[in-house]
Amino acid sequence: MADEPRFRIDPGTAAATRIRLPEAEAKHAHLVLRLRSGDACTLTDGRGTLLRGQIGSADRNGVWVVVSERTLVPPEADHALAIAYLHKPDRLEFAVEKAVEIGVASIHLFRADRSEKPSVREDRLRAQVQAAVKQSQRAWEPELYLHASFDALVAARGDLDLLVAHEKAAADDVPDAHRAALLCIGPEGGFTDRELQVATAVGGRMVSLGPHRLRAETAALVLLTRVSPLRRVSGE
Amino acid sequence: MADEPRFRIDPGTAAATRIRLPEAEAKHAHLVLRLRSGDACTLTDGRGTLLRGQIGSADRNGVWVVVSERTLVPPEADHALAIAYLHKPDRLEFAVEKAVEIGVASIHLFRADRSEKPSVREDRLRAQVQAAVKQSQRAWEPELYLHASFDALVAARGDLDLLVAHEKAAADDVPDAHRAALLCIGPEGGFTDRELQVATAVGGRMVSLGPHRLRAETAALVLLTRVSPLRRVSGE
Repeated sequence: MADEPRFRIDPGTAAATRIRLPEAEAKHAHLVLRLRSGDACTLTDGRGTLLRGQIGSADRNGVWVVVSERTLVPPEADHALAIAYLHKPDRLEFAVEKAVEIGVASIHLFRADRSEKPSVREDRLRAQVQAAVKQSQRAWEPELYLHASFDALVAARGDLDLLVAHEKAAADDVPDAHRAALLCIGPEGGFTDRELQVATAVGGRMVSLGPHRLRAETAALVLLTRVSPLRRVSGE
Repeated sequence: MADEPRFRIDPGTAAATRIRLPEAEAKHAHLVLRLRSGDACTLTDGRGTLLRGQIGSADRNGVWVVVSERTLVPPEADHALAIAYLHKPDRLEFAVEKAVEIGVASIHLFRADRSEKPSVREDRLRAQVQAAVKQSQRAWEPELYLHASFDALVAARGDLDLLVAHEKAAADDVPDAHRAALLCIGPEGGFTDRELQVATAVGGRMVSLGPHRLRAETAALVLLTRVSPLRRVSGE
């Protein structure tokens, strides 16, 4: 299964036994991979549905897949990861790819006080998330949200705990496996005192990632790793 | 201090109060950075000595630094990270850079049963380690070792515990903050059963990094993060 072509389908289409691939996926299947009737493939809708099937037909009019096996994968990740717009977009891309791989429920970008004007487009980032989900062979695609400010991000946190990675955190205030939290990583210049006050005013906690300041994309992965339990308590 | 130019000097020269920069560093200081007498800079020997000083003189004959402040930084990292030669050398480079940033005592490369012929040269990797140390502003440069096989790596482990990241590990055999260990990451195709037996025969332990198979470079950073304590017990 690991080597089978993998396609993303819209959640609304995942219940059928014969599924037509979305246009971009169909083009890739037909023109690039040159799949033919009978070839095995895997489909996912990004909402936990994992389907195995075979190509029913593939031509310039479209590609149809016949489903032979259906699995519902429960959600595995609880945490939301928020990263400020970084000066170097490729580092943000890297963080997104690795966060999907390690496991994250949603990804949030925000303009921090010290962020530069964002140079990454939402549609491009969404495509990167989808590509990362495919490469990591996941059934759940993290949601992607953009926020105009740290304040807006914090206001949208719902009932998630707020954890902010910052050097000012006490050396012994360290992250560990944690109930669902919104993990916040600042821009290269760090969070401003104003932003830290916004976080602590709503009960947010600053956590230390060690004695050395890490690059934003490294901090994102270290924090996500540290708060992610290695096994689910719910007895799977 | 974070923005000062940083140079690497040979450990043998770190005790003096006037230090001549090695040729490559001197060229960079003089021709690229155009440093002049009086400019502040930082020197490190990669063995814990951190020196602050000012340029004494900089010309085509060399660059001398006058030391004004000397700090001895205790070693901070205990773990050795071993990664098999990967098919894609840029992923190895990435792993090395991030491992230095997160903190590692030594880095080991080895030819696994399923490694392809290595396409990275030792001198190039050593230069990458040094660049990562500079960028992360560390006083300790991890040692770099190359091993002809996993067997040779294991034989050279000294008194380090052996932890091997592998999907076959029991789901509840997870890494946590650990005394000094040799962390082993296999190639893209994974360790062979033969190699796993080599490890377990000497008391090595397989650990799980979660329910999903991670890319080698991601596994390296996740394992290193999980076994690295966030604060030192020795009361610093």
